[in-house]
Amino acid sequence: MNDDPLRAFAAVNGGFRWDRVDVLRYKDEGSAPFRDVTRQTLFRRPDMRGELRYFEVAPGGYSTLERHEHVHAVMILRGGGEALVGEQVFAVEAYDLVTVPPLAWHQFRAARTAPLGFLCMVDAERDKSQLPDARDLEQLRTHPPVARFLDPR
Amino acid sequence: MNDDPLRAFAAVNGGFRWDRVDVLRYKDEGSAPFRDVTRQTLFRRPDMRGELRYFEVAPGGYSTLERHEHVHAVMILRGGGEALVGEQVFAVEAYDLVTVPPLAWHQFRAARTAPLGFLCMVDAERDKSQLPDARDLEQLRTHPPVARFLDPR
Repeated sequence: MNDDPLRAFAAVNGGFRWDRVDVLRYKDEGSAPFRDVTRQTLFRRPDMRGELRYFEVAPGGYSTLERHEHVHAVMILRGGGEALVGEQVFAVEAYDLVTVPPLAWHQFRAARTAPLGFLCMVDAERDKSQLPDARDLEQLRTHPPVARFLDPR
Repeated sequence: MNDDPLRAFAAVNGGFRWDRVDVLRYKDEGSAPFRDVTRQTLFRRPDMRGELRYFEVAPGGYSTLERHEHVHAVMILRGGGEALVGEQVFAVEAYDLVTVPPLAWHQFRAARTAPLGFLCMVDAERDKSQLPDARDLEQLRTHPPVARFLDPR
C-alpha cells in the first residue's frame, strides 16, 4: 500500500486504476439514465479550484445525457467511441480533446468492442446537472446525427 | 484545419500534438534553467478556474527546479523519468499521478532514452514561481537522493 500523499502509481496491470484512488459508481442507480460507467477522482483538494476525474464507460455503455452551467474539459485516455456535444456527434479516440460548453447537452458512448476512458476537468465549485425532458429530447432528435446517436440500432 | 471550438483532435501520427493547440516554448530562454521542454495549453477558458497543460521533456531534458504557492496536479502521459518533489525522488511512468504541494521544490527529468510527457492541472489564478538560491540548493543537496537527482553523472 502506498500512503505517500505526493504520488499515486498507476496499476501495473495497466487497468487504469490507481493506488489510493477509489473506483466509485458513476452515479447512484436510478438517479439518471446511464450504463456501465465508473468514476475515479484523481485530484480534488481544498487548495485547488479545479478537479480532475477519470471516467470509464464499458463497451456498449454510455454516460448520462445531461447539461449544466459548468464546463467539462475532456481528454480521451483509452479506447474509443462517440461524443454528443450540443447538436454535434463525433468519433473520439485516445488523446482527443473535447470541450463541453455551458448548457450544452452531452453524452459519451463507448464503442461496442472497446471501453471509453476519459479525463474530465471541472471546477470544484459547480452547479448540478439537468436531465432532458420530453421536449428537450424531441428537439435534440430533430438533428438526424443526434437522433442516430441517441437511438443506436 | 479543424476550427470547431468543441474538439481538438490528437495528431494522427501520435506525436502528442493537437490541432488548434500551439506548441510553445516552456519558458523564455535565460529566464530559468531548463532543457528541452515544450508546453501546450490544452484547456484555458475564462469560465473555468482550472487549466490543463501538457509538457514534454525530451530525452535527457529537465524542467525548471522551482516552487510556488499553487499546487500542481500531474498525470504522466508518455515515456518515463524521475520526479523530485520536496525531498523525495521517485521514478515515474505513464499514468502515474504526482501532487506538488504548496512551496515544495520540484523538478521533472526525462529518462536518457525516453521523453517524459505529462499533464499538469493548475489554478488559472496562481502565483509566480520562485527559483532556488544557493542556500536552498545546499539544503536540498543534504538529502542524498536529491543530490543524485540534481547532479546526475
